[in-house]
Amino acid sequence: MLSCGWLLALSLAALTGRTTGAVAYEQTERDCSLYPPYLPSTAVNTTLQLQELRERMLPLNISAYIIPGTDAHLSEYIAPRDARMAFMTGFTGSAGTAVVTQTKAALWTDSRYWVQAERQMDCNWELEKDVSIRNVAEWLISEVPSGSEIGFDPFLFSLKTQGDYGVNLESSNRSLKSIPVNLVDQVWKDRPSIPPDNLTLLPDRVIRGSWQMKVEQIRNQMRDNPYKPTALLLSALDETAWLFNLRGSDIPYNPFFYSYTLLTIDEIWLFLHTVRVTEELKVYLNASCEGPLCVQLKSYESILDHLKTYVAQPDIKVWIGTEYTNYALYEVITPADKLMTSSYSPVLTTKAVKDETEQRILREAHVRDAVAVIQLLMWLEKTVPKGKETELTAAEYVNMCRGKQKDSRGPSFETISASGPNAALAHYSPTEATSRRLTVDEMYLVDSGGQYLDGTTDITRTVHWGTPTALQKEAFTRVLMGNIEISRTIFPSGTREPHFSICVNMEMLGRRALWEVGLNYGHGTGHGVGNYFGVHEWPVGFQGNNIPFRAGMFTSIEPGYYKENDFGIRIEDVAVIIPVQTKYGQDYLTFDTVSLVPYDRKLIDTSLLSSEQLQWLNKYYKTIRRLLGPELDKQGLNEEKDWMFRNTEPFMASGSSASVCSSSLTLIVLPVALFHIV
Amino acid sequence: MLSCGWLLALSLAALTGRTTGAVAYEQTERDCSLYPPYLPSTAVNTTLQLQELRERMLPLNISAYIIPGTDAHLSEYIAPRDARMAFMTGFTGSAGTAVVTQTKAALWTDSRYWVQAERQMDCNWELEKDVSIRNVAEWLISEVPSGSEIGFDPFLFSLKTQGDYGVNLESSNRSLKSIPVNLVDQVWKDRPSIPPDNLTLLPDRVIRGSWQMKVEQIRNQMRDNPYKPTALLLSALDETAWLFNLRGSDIPYNPFFYSYTLLTIDEIWLFLHTVRVTEELKVYLNASCEGPLCVQLKSYESILDHLKTYVAQPDIKVWIGTEYTNYALYEVITPADKLMTSSYSPVLTTKAVKDETEQRILREAHVRDAVAVIQLLMWLEKTVPKGKETELTAAEYVNMCRGKQKDSRGPSFETISASGPNAALAHYSPTEATSRRLTVDEMYLVDSGGQYLDGTTDITRTVHWGTPTALQKEAFTRVLMGNIEISRTIFPSGTREPHFSICVNMEMLGRRALWEVGLNYGHGTGHGVGNYFGVHEWPVGFQGNNIPFRAGMFTSIEPGYYKENDFGIRIEDVAVIIPVQTKYGQDYLTFDTVSLVPYDRKLIDTSLLSSEQLQWLNKYYKTIRRLLGPELDKQGLNEEKDWMFRNTEPFMASGSSASVCSSSLTLIVLPVALFHIV
Repeated sequence: MLSCGWLLALSLAALTGRTTGAVAYEQTERDCSLYPPYLPSTAVNTTLQLQELRERMLPLNISAYIIPGTDAHLSEYIAPRDARMAFMTGFTGSAGTAVVTQTKAALWTDSRYWVQAERQMDCNWELEKDVSIRNVAEWLISEVPSGSEIGFDPFLFSLKTQGDYGVNLESSNRSLKSIPVNLVDQVWKDRPSIPPDNLTLLPDRVIRGSWQMKVEQIRNQMRDNPYKPTALLLSALDETAWLFNLRGSDIPYNPFFYSYTLLTIDEIWLFLHTVRVTEELKVYLNASCEGPLCVQLKSYESILDHLKTYVAQPDIKVWIGTEYTNYALYEVITPADKLMTSSYSPVLTTKAVKDETEQRILREAHVRDAVAVIQLLMWLEKTVPKGKETELTAAEYVNMCRGKQKDSRGPSFETISASGPNAALAHYSPTEATSRRLTVDEMYLVDSGGQYLDGTTDITRTVHWGTPTALQKEAFTRVLMGNIEISRTIFPSGTREPHFSICVNMEMLGRRALWEVGLNYGHGTGHGVGNYFGVHEWPVGFQGNNIPFRAGMFTSIEPGYYKENDFGIRIEDVAVIIPVQTKYGQDYLTFDTVSLVPYDRKLIDTSLLSSEQLQWLNKYYKTIRRLLGPELDKQGLNEEKDWMFRNTEPFMASGSSASVCSSSLTLIVLPVALFHIV
Repeated sequence: MLSCGWLLALSLAALTGRTTGAVAYEQTERDCSLYPPYLPSTAVNTTLQLQELRERMLPLNISAYIIPGTDAHLSEYIAPRDARMAFMTGFTGSAGTAVVTQTKAALWTDSRYWVQAERQMDCNWELEKDVSIRNVAEWLISEVPSGSEIGFDPFLFSLKTQGDYGVNLESSNRSLKSIPVNLVDQVWKDRPSIPPDNLTLLPDRVIRGSWQMKVEQIRNQMRDNPYKPTALLLSALDETAWLFNLRGSDIPYNPFFYSYTLLTIDEIWLFLHTVRVTEELKVYLNASCEGPLCVQLKSYESILDHLKTYVAQPDIKVWIGTEYTNYALYEVITPADKLMTSSYSPVLTTKAVKDETEQRILREAHVRDAVAVIQLLMWLEKTVPKGKETELTAAEYVNMCRGKQKDSRGPSFETISASGPNAALAHYSPTEATSRRLTVDEMYLVDSGGQYLDGTTDITRTVHWGTPTALQKEAFTRVLMGNIEISRTIFPSGTREPHFSICVNMEMLGRRALWEVGLNYGHGTGHGVGNYFGVHEWPVGFQGNNIPFRAGMFTSIEPGYYKENDFGIRIEDVAVIIPVQTKYGQDYLTFDTVSLVPYDRKLIDTSLLSSEQLQWLNKYYKTIRRLLGPELDKQGLNEEKDWMFRNTEPFMASGSSASVCSSSLTLIVLPVALFHIV
């Protein structure tokens, strides 16, 4: 699945608004240029909450108030109680920033959501389309007078976000003002409360080691650091979940619970809603003592005061990750010599490299996940020609298939099930109003994933049940070429060569075959994936702020192509980075694809593929047969097994000569992890 | 030529120390572990200057003093009077940072220079090999006590450098102290003075427009900027040289003169050594009036005071480039709302895109330059087997050949003429002591360039006059594949897609064929080149802090491979970015190579090349014949013409099938610039 924050401000397709049934035409987007304005039934009246927010801004002497779409942990997905932007604006998309002044209100969101925003917002709100902080700042400069202050909740800004606003405002004589109480919460009367669910402990078979071992591993990194940090502040939700092998369900699709951890060399403080910790978990956490391996439980709300008390001591230094620690916590760590920063904490960088157990079980989760996706594709192939299925029923079917697999814990994100023009919207998920009937005349894209106790999966396949056009076939093949070119690339381990981590990356290999004919896509090319965590696991991936690839990391590879109002193509696999032996050099890496679902054969024009690409494809298909065949047998899925074998027939080179055009060197993949099929 | 600052801290080959003659063995590097230490004759006694510097540090209460290797304009090449690091350390390499405390002295330089530093420094100095600012900061933290201040000359730090030191020191309770008077200059009694040479004006035929037109062009960009800057401060030497179509000779190989410009909407102040401006130039500059198109001449030293006075006025905002403006100027622009920053000034970004005239004349300079390089290669082919030529005589020969070409203004950098193991040192230039005799048994690398009134050139060829080894041939071919893969790539214009400018870049295409067999190189892949400027013209190139490629930019493309103590390969061409028509898309670009010298045929293993690579190569050779043939005729160089034709014979595909393995789409290069051969 595409990572949020990756979509570039390209003008992607606009949702057509056609529905599957034969309903009368109704305008689905607002028109604020009319008098009175036209508002569709989906628009939310926000007059009252805006009025109350503005009243609360007055005594604070702020000319504007910024409302981000995130939570105090800078989470990508948020719980309903953190959906402040949606409460204020009516807009429920997953990415955006709202700003309110006494006379105006504006929402910034990227191209994926422009149509949705026009449907959900009333005319109190203007829609702004350039989502850069620079653009928000320019809007603020034009709207609020010189000398004024702009309020924000420091818990909802990373220190990076705060800094970016600062840079863009500093020369304008407008400044940010940190407001410790959230003004939206004061206005939001029926704000959802904290869920009461207890936390759950992962079984030993799906973890890399006890929390005590992990704590020691992280403490060793603190001791080895030349800046000598005395404490590490963990504020991302997956940091604490990973460290203690615990999971929760506070956020849809993400097995997280509200928490912070302050880990020092001698003590461990865990901040969470303590009523949710069972007696059994207290024993597990060694919560009744004080000492290096005792976890002292503190209330979630006490983090700020506790951190202040800790920082007030002499000779301390707190290590934080600048990419995601919130400004409220950051600003109490003063003076500067009590602070130590890196982009990501050692927990995140350690967690990114999967150990042998984690690699094995994450591969296993992908085997079971492939069964579910193959069940979907086979079922659609049979039922779509009958004319009854829709985007929604297909999404329900794949969710149901996943749910039957061992250790399933539901989908890892809302399934993107998109036919024809809907697939041109990269992040579309069907609703009753938009769901199209699936037909043999349209391409169909399904981007879905599962949460399993042993791993998180994410895969996209694009298929056509009828006759694709020449452009569809060429574009699909070139997207596939991009996927293969990244997957088969050999590259030096990034550990020794810091420059390479940033800009000598493989991302453009995903685009190059498309560029050659003037095609492209407006989103990123991959993101980290992990063991029962969020589907977008930082800091792995192909972006500039990702860390260098190392053996044992898992990333998605997902080039695409989208033709506005027509069709969308994306081919997404998850791959693990593995060592590879080369003719002359040491320390080289490549990718090993762990998603195991064949691509739609009728969309592949083999004459476009190089011999290396064909070889890669045939080898991949052999792997699918080898790993998936026994699993399908075990599950007694004979028809699916036949389908899988039919769809993984080796490809012949188009023209007899493809295999001779370039000498290809034999690469021997090191057997780094023994891989047992369950 | 490789750009400084690009070399990664790879452990490159160490210079062997063998000389060409049969001299007795003498240890050429210091050995400070002995007592008394062993020092070669090349080592410089620095005891006196260190003692005097330390005395001057005492009253300032600084525990350390940082001595960078640059000048007040953050120039890459510096004039002798700015060689403060060399004066203090003895080390004359072009990149490094020295730090002096009361008890220690350390020099940081990259792997290119480790051997040279060990030869030139006495045992007062320790050599540090990790050149990151973080490493210098860690050294400082370990050497100076908590609470102490570290002095630096704010004119020799960019604000970025100052910021990087700040970030790395802030949590350590050590801080930087800006010292407005340079302490080395106080100690340096025979510091060279400003050269007396007058400035020179470029003829109309080699400029894109009058300085008045350029001033208006830049002022328009200031007016259009939403932050409404009132002034633009130009502190890089090529900014002022470009704006006024003037050149100087203050810095070896670089046609620059010491200068700053403060350009406002209504006035122009040019800061330079006014005695060097002739009466004729004063008229040209309209220097006797005050007004929007009058250039008011001020003394070079008055910039700081003048800037302070300007900043003291109300309603002003000064625009600076953060990558290279020095900290001394930056720190007077307060409060923050009087400052506006971008990485590079609009002069640098405007200058980077060559207009039609500049493109035409820069191409023409490359035609003449190719004649000189071909003369060298042909001459070496004839004379090397006779056993008389050395690295030094080859360098002299190519410099002489260039000198005979029209509008020649000397070499654009010190010629890198390197045989056998010397070529494994990427930045080696021969001296009497190191110059090897050229033989048919060794590979030879020559990286050289010329300054011409109409353009700056830079080209590297690697040749073998005997029988190359299998590894030499494979490595050369893979380096060539890297060069071709970048050159033939089609990519979207970066102007609309900001994310792509940073990380979706083509740099890795230069390495990929090498990575495939475990080979790599430890330097960058290309840098901007311009019209009679420094050979490394910022901000164009393949690095993360370069700006996106646009049509009309010129860059070098220079992958390589270096085998320690054995041989070195680099293939460098200059290419211009041009629009290209694709099957489906608009606004796509590719490269058009303007260097016109064939590659050594005997080093190319065509069986490794794809059909697309072979096609590119044959097309390039046809271009060489078309453009160079008439020029060689015109210069009456018949033998050279024969040599060129022999060396540009089309290659046949190895195996008959190469041309069928991938459908190759016809690309039509738009005729953006009419290209007349002089």
